[in-house]
Amino acid sequence: MAVPGVSVDLNADLGEGFGVWSLGDDDAMLDIVTSANVACGFHAGDPVGLLRVCRAAADRGVRIGAQVGYRDLAGFGRRFIDVDPEELSAEVIYQIGALSALAAAAGSAVSYVKPHGALYNSIVTHEGQAQAVAAAVRAVDPGLPVLGPAGSAFFEAAEAAGLRTVSEAFADRAYRPDGALVSRREPRAVLHDADEIAERVLGMVLDGRVVAQDGSPISISAESVCVHGDSPGAVQIAAAIRARLRERGVIAAPFS
Amino acid sequence: MAVPGVSVDLNADLGEGFGVWSLGDDDAMLDIVTSANVACGFHAGDPVGLLRVCRAAADRGVRIGAQVGYRDLAGFGRRFIDVDPEELSAEVIYQIGALSALAAAAGSAVSYVKPHGALYNSIVTHEGQAQAVAAAVRAVDPGLPVLGPAGSAFFEAAEAAGLRTVSEAFADRAYRPDGALVSRREPRAVLHDADEIAERVLGMVLDGRVVAQDGSPISISAESVCVHGDSPGAVQIAAAIRARLRERGVIAAPFS
Amino acid sequence: MAVPGVSVDLNADLGEGFGVWSLGDDDAMLDIVTSANVACGFHAGDPVGLLRVCRAAADRGVRIGAQVGYRDLAGFGRRFIDVDPEELSAEVIYQIGALSALAAAAGSAVSYVKPHGALYNSIVTHEGQAQAVAAAVRAVDPGLPVLGPAGSAFFEAAEAAGLRTVSEAFADRAYRPDGALVSRREPRAVLHDADEIAERVLGMVLDGRVVAQDGSPISISAESVCVHGDSPGAVQIAAAIRARLRERGVIAAPFS
Amino acid sequence: MAVPGVSVDLNADLGEGFGVWSLGDDDAMLDIVTSANVACGFHAGDPVGLLRVCRAAADRGVRIGAQVGYRDLAGFGRRFIDVDPEELSAEVIYQIGALSALAAAAGSAVSYVKPHGALYNSIVTHEGQAQAVAAAVRAVDPGLPVLGPAGSAFFEAAEAAGLRTVSEAFADRAYRPDGALVSRREPRAVLHDADEIAERVLGMVLDGRVVAQDGSPISISAESVCVHGDSPGAVQIAAAIRARLRERGVIAAPFS
Repeated sequence: MAVPGVSVDLNADLGEGFGVWSLGDDDAMLDIVTSANVACGFHAGDPVGLLRVCRAAADRGVRIGAQVGYRDLAGFGRRFIDVDPEELSAEVIYQIGALSALAAAAGSAVSYVKPHGALYNSIVTHEGQAQAVAAAVRAVDPGLPVLGPAGSAFFEAAEAAGLRTVSEAFADRAYRPDGALVSRREPRAVLHDADEIAERVLGMVLDGRVVAQDGSPISISAESVCVHGDSPGAVQIAAAIRARLRERGVIAAPFS
Repeated sequence: MAVPGVSVDLNADLGEGFGVWSLGDDDAMLDIVTSANVACGFHAGDPVGLLRVCRAAADRGVRIGAQVGYRDLAGFGRRFIDVDPEELSAEVIYQIGALSALAAAAGSAVSYVKPHGALYNSIVTHEGQAQAVAAAVRAVDPGLPVLGPAGSAFFEAAEAAGLRTVSEAFADRAYRPDGALVSRREPRAVLHDADEIAERVLGMVLDGRVVAQDGSPISISAESVCVHGDSPGAVQIAAAIRARLRERGVIAAPFS
Repeated sequence: MAVPGVSVDLNADLGEGFGVWSLGDDDAMLDIVTSANVACGFHAGDPVGLLRVCRAAADRGVRIGAQVGYRDLAGFGRRFIDVDPEELSAEVIYQIGALSALAAAAGSAVSYVKPHGALYNSIVTHEGQAQAVAAAVRAVDPGLPVLGPAGSAFFEAAEAAGLRTVSEAFADRAYRPDGALVSRREPRAVLHDADEIAERVLGMVLDGRVVAQDGSPISISAESVCVHGDSPGAVQIAAAIRARLRERGVIAAPFS
Repeated sequence: MAVPGVSVDLNADLGEGFGVWSLGDDDAMLDIVTSANVACGFHAGDPVGLLRVCRAAADRGVRIGAQVGYRDLAGFGRRFIDVDPEELSAEVIYQIGALSALAAAAGSAVSYVKPHGALYNSIVTHEGQAQAVAAAVRAVDPGLPVLGPAGSAFFEAAEAAGLRTVSEAFADRAYRPDGALVSRREPRAVLHDADEIAERVLGMVLDGRVVAQDGSPISISAESVCVHGDSPGAVQIAAAIRARLRERGVIAAPFS
């Protein structure tokens, strides 16, 4: 049964190659998602590759977000770094600015900010780093929304800084009963079955619920749903999600 | 005898430390120069250090320029890299954007662009890279002037792209009879005597002339004069230049 | 008709991923080649990935060579950098040492040195860099052979330094009539047809000849033949070469 | 009153510049210390600079140790990074190997290993990383001693791996009552008075004691004492320590 009037934003991490190395199929993902979290060169992304993905997003009318991360190409931004908040804040300003210029050169703009990887996880609880990211976004443009997990120290800091927060859920990541993501270092942290994932997303969007790793249902807030672009079968999974949403009348559209 | 109404811009390369490593005395130089060529992180400059120098420049009303370079921290951007023009262009956009966000966070803005080191030298003759840099500046903001050597492939490309070009001379660098800089790898490429350098700058500004390495006088166009911030005695030399200009009634002021 | 007693070394560039980014199928290539040119971290290769490929090579008895390059992850070592010879020499020593320790930890050793990418091309004619690489190899171990193109400034410098030189040809790269490689920036620089490539290698090994880009036959010296591991169909091409050699009785074996 | 027969090793962190950036006065420190902890390129140190300091150490008969750190030039290795132990282990092997080749080219060798900065602090308690470093040293050479803090997880892991451990104290760092170092982020973490520091070292060496931050005396084991080479007045402080030791008849000599 279709659910009229319900819409959800689908976002994916893109532009995450570096030089000769590519990751995922950005063009295919841009045909599916409504928001592109484009890397900013610190965890991934070289300028010419970022410019190409900005152009491809602009061509399709897909919104561009700055996916900011730790300075850690070797670790793809997936390792916590105990960066001083003052330094982190400057690094985030730097990354947003760099991508903004590339997005502008592509005829678009950075419309939101999403932290990446270990930084994303860190600022769920790390208040110093959470405030640093929020302060950086505010310094660049207080009108830029931030994507992240509801209930986090980051959202608290962002709201205190007057930023609009957009709650996000992950299509293919396992959740702990407390609502946190299961770490990628643990087994079964990432789901792989397209139908299961599509059904899961439907539950997140229509019911605000997802089943945690231990089988218990938990509440989840999802103005935007992250679909991964770099896992095996990523494009098929994303397409299955979008198709399943369409079947039920849920519109994929950028968050307002 | 004072020369009423003559003015010149004094620029210096600043923000060129990286992490724990510092280079030169930025604060002292900012008390002397009228334009600050702030590094953008590719040849030097980490975000928090760049933010600090942007704030210090903003506090003193010193204009900020983006000093863009090759991606080469290990070589401080002083080694030619045969970068593909398309990549170089994206790298320059990236750098200008990054510094722009930091300058904005400091309450200022990037007001011009100056290539650094080996890139500066390369685009005197390398048309592909010259056009890449000009195209990048234009993509970011066609109103941004570029600093560089008159008569270069870079100025030709910049003018073709509709950019304002600002000709620059170097206070303490030896010139060849053809007007090119003597390479830093050669002996006596850099002058060290403050009085000699100050007198030399006066000649550049008032007479449009400088004595080349072989003793022959050559014409030189200098809307802006670069004083180095990182050589031994840099601050004393810069202060001597400024004092000597003042004695002769030449005003140090940003180029128009 | 089989040609008894003829053998050739097949080498491939391996370990060329970085962090999360992979490149080529190292394990499949290691089942085909007899010498593995393992990256050393400057143009590609992170330590844990390098250790894995060293172990995989050691497990199969495939010889390990140090594939040294310019410090240029963003450009994959494919861009000429005007590095000072003294610096380059130290960088090559550093790289060989780093890989030697990883190879030793894998129960093997670095048995030869092969320059990568733009460095490989540069030292065909750049005497300063050629001597720098030769001096570095000699400083680490005068018994280490070097792989490269016959007739190059590098081979001249290596021989003057008392190093054993091993001449190499490229299975899938187009040659100019003067024996130099066609630049990757030009069209048809790389061949893709497995049968054509296999036949070409046979001609190199048995006749010491290859057909240049303009159709003229040229002489080529090939104690070792490089098969690429990262182009599309790389594994199939390498397997076709090995199979075609076997058909004609040519033995794939490490150079002596 | 002289104390016959007592000796202590004085070590300092050297080779910690990078490219154009220098740090400390390596030559002056090499005239004072008996062991040089030479950076390995991950937190600091470019190959040609490392080769120079290895040569300078070799010229003076000062022993060379590999000062291994996190891959973090921007943070000078002073920020904890949550590196996977398997990756860290490979990174440490890589670093020791790289420096070993440079030391050999300088006519010397790596004689011990000392972790740097945040890695040093982390492995006091982080068992995974502690074991990773110990395993790496063992993989390179089980005969290499390791320098570090007595009572640490690192020493436990090193001893379990059959490595010789050499306990170290810091001349100019404040200690907490539990024997840990006061973090550099706290005030008064570093002492600056040369006479006070020299007296402190004497107490460490002769009495095995030092006064903690709260005024309480604590036991300290110091086969080697670290004197910093990069703080203001570093050379004067190191010279004062060496002179004070000499006055009391304590010999500065490499640990056995």
